[in-house]
Amino acid sequence: MLKNKLVKIGLIQQSYSNSKNETIEKTLQMIKRAKAKGAELVLLQELHQDKYFCINEDTSNFDKAENFKSDVTFWANVAKENELVLVTSLFEKRTAGIYHNTAVVFDKDGSIAGQYRKMHIPDDPGFYEKFYFSEGDLGYEPIQTSVGKLGVLICWDQWYPEAARLMTLKGAQILIYPTAIGWFDEDSENEKDKQLDSWITVQRGHAIANGIPLIAINRVGKEFDNQKNIDGIRFWGNSFVVGAQGEFITKASSDKDEVIIVNIDLLKNEDIRRTWPFLRDRRIETYNELNRRFID
Amino acid sequence: MLKNKLVKIGLIQQSYSNSKNETIEKTLQMIKRAKAKGAELVLLQELHQDKYFCINEDTSNFDKAENFKSDVTFWANVAKENELVLVTSLFEKRTAGIYHNTAVVFDKDGSIAGQYRKMHIPDDPGFYEKFYFSEGDLGYEPIQTSVGKLGVLICWDQWYPEAARLMTLKGAQILIYPTAIGWFDEDSENEKDKQLDSWITVQRGHAIANGIPLIAINRVGKEFDNQKNIDGIRFWGNSFVVGAQGEFITKASSDKDEVIIVNIDLLKNEDIRRTWPFLRDRRIETYNELNRRFID
Repeated sequence: MLKNKLVKIGLIQQSYSNSKNETIEKTLQMIKRAKAKGAELVLLQELHQDKYFCINEDTSNFDKAENFKSDVTFWANVAKENELVLVTSLFEKRTAGIYHNTAVVFDKDGSIAGQYRKMHIPDDPGFYEKFYFSEGDLGYEPIQTSVGKLGVLICWDQWYPEAARLMTLKGAQILIYPTAIGWFDEDSENEKDKQLDSWITVQRGHAIANGIPLIAINRVGKEFDNQKNIDGIRFWGNSFVVGAQGEFITKASSDKDEVIIVNIDLLKNEDIRRTWPFLRDRRIETYNELNRRFID
Repeated sequence: MLKNKLVKIGLIQQSYSNSKNETIEKTLQMIKRAKAKGAELVLLQELHQDKYFCINEDTSNFDKAENFKSDVTFWANVAKENELVLVTSLFEKRTAGIYHNTAVVFDKDGSIAGQYRKMHIPDDPGFYEKFYFSEGDLGYEPIQTSVGKLGVLICWDQWYPEAARLMTLKGAQILIYPTAIGWFDEDSENEKDKQLDSWITVQRGHAIANGIPLIAINRVGKEFDNQKNIDGIRFWGNSFVVGAQGEFITKASSDKDEVIIVNIDLLKNEDIRRTWPFLRDRRIETYNELNRRFID
């Protein structure tokens, strides 16, 4: 018989509120609600401290990374005070000219369990991340915490089966994607539905292919482009949790702040992979060309 | 402006009918119906000539591969007579003791456009393919035909993002999965729904991650295990077609023989990949460990 390892997880889906301070204040209240409901692990969305500044290219935004060290200290204290494992998503200044989109994971005692620097960086109208972030150089390393081994990836990574696979092969027990993705109001409803469905489906595919539960935590609310290159982005929420067969456990609204609480069994992978032994049959000697840009 | 390349495709979803001869006769009638509706490319399901013999392990079943060469000649003539590109799925004897689960693709003149030998081989109760088939040794090579470059993979391959990615990187314009997958009647309805949904979802994920349309053609009908190790398999049909954003174009029933006709634009990939440039941002220098069994 297999053992269980149930972990109660809180997802914080929220909108930006006027300022960094006000936004953080709301996050703290939501974390307390998650804690009150018994969460041991709390997950925040991508770049949760502030507005999604990558909506345009503005060098003054790099100022936001100047506080990275004090931000780390701040969230370490939040983890410690609430006795939670906490997954944060911060704007990291490493040195002048080198910045990262970085998830910092804290254990219940406030110590840093590990960090992950976003590996795949997007660049599309309204999502100018290549302007702000260097590509991560820490690889796909799961982060060992007191509640389990967390495969933390970030947003654009979610479109890459390679990232999910490598985290799994390195022993992650769950995949976690802090995210900031949304719609343009000017797109058709049909196009919007297709985009949302694709975003959910590709991630459910990772869960299935790897026999691993998966959580995406997305921003919500509309944010405007003050440079007026685009109108703005309506972040689509829909934070969700699926099990190791890709089955839905929960899904949030597209427009509300929400604290979502779920129980996940981090040892159920064992069961699923016995029945669906995909990892057993990988043809590893035939995958070498995956490191090619295109095979022409 | 981009050009279109619309191809009318016919999928033949069918049940086994008493004997190889009777089953093939039905297939021929269904191919003629597809042709009458204008199909230029016809796709058959996995091991379509016969029952799904891998339901148990029986050395006498290797006799079925003795006719591989005459089977190839037969289907070449079918392609030629109907002036169709035809994707078949046959039991190949290569020499004594080496057998493959092989897709042979014919062009409209009856010539062999190419073949694909199933790379990932399953082995589960009722699906004893490792007993019958050696692992394919032709790699993931798209097959150039007069209607386009076809990424033909087979059944169990559909659970592997690596296979879909490599076909895409080698220039496939569409992914095609002849399949034989089904339910055990003794499983709960909830479990059956989950299995079917996972099967569809993981493949839709490949379409999305690679910006490529995808077709699965599955067997239908219940087949029994005459060795009585299991009761039998109720092949679940649900053959489907999705576009390059994973959006449904069509889906078949779970229990009926069907000829499904769809129009697919093999140049729409271009559009989709401009908007969703996932291939652009792959971190190819970080994927080398995908050729590891487990990274421990």
